[in-house]
Amino acid sequence: MADPIKNILKNNHDIKVNGSLWLESADGHFFGPGPVELLERIAETGSINMAAKAMNMSYKKAWALVNALNTQTSTPVVIAQTGGKKGGGSTVTHEAIELIKYHRQLRERFKDFLEKETQLLKT
Amino acid sequence: MADPIKNILKNNHDIKVNGSLWLESADGHFFGPGPVELLERIAETGSINMAAKAMNMSYKKAWALVNALNTQTSTPVVIAQTGGKKGGGSTVTHEAIELIKYHRQLRERFKDFLEKETQLLKT
Repeated sequence: MADPIKNILKNNHDIKVNGSLWLESADGHFFGPGPVELLERIAETGSINMAAKAMNMSYKKAWALVNALNTQTSTPVVIAQTGGKKGGGSTVTHEAIELIKYHRQLRERFKDFLEKETQLLKT
Repeated sequence: MADPIKNILKNNHDIKVNGSLWLESADGHFFGPGPVELLERIAETGSINMAAKAMNMSYKKAWALVNALNTQTSTPVVIAQTGGKKGGGSTVTHEAIELIKYHRQLRERFKDFLEKETQLLKT
């Protein structure tokens, strides 16, 4: 029987398997946790500005992300309104909700994978 | 039934789930693909220098990695000899072989996870 890896590596107690996950396509576009969090917060607040603030992100960067997202999707995921009496307001589409849902489930499965691997590391 | 995500995201054909994986402990030490590849190459070549060259890594950096590895493991994983008639030569220990084996299996399981998720993305 092989030595448990935790016996080879020091700091047995707190060692864990961790990682990151993203969606990518051959043309270099990718879709990671940042854009999804932005989508989630726009869905919650109805505002790109508030979503950006909550993420300590500049309004400019948030807009760039929204534009990038809308370019990467077959139909826009954020419908942005600028100006107007109420100072704008943005809504997310059905497709955005689907993306958010998918992403949450994917994270959940990845979390399970990492937890299983961390357990395996210690046995 | 929800829309397949591939219908929401453009570039359906080549989209895939990708990610990276590492081992980490609370004190900030971590053990990723780089050190493992170095170990593998030292095991193959019996030489830190040749291993470093094969990875386009400076000798200095390779040594730093080896020292870091030996500090993170309960027994050294690389036994390095410098100088001497044959100009040095390094061997890896049983523990290094175990680490390499574990790491390969972990990568294999992660690859399976990513492939499964990529398939799921397209259905």
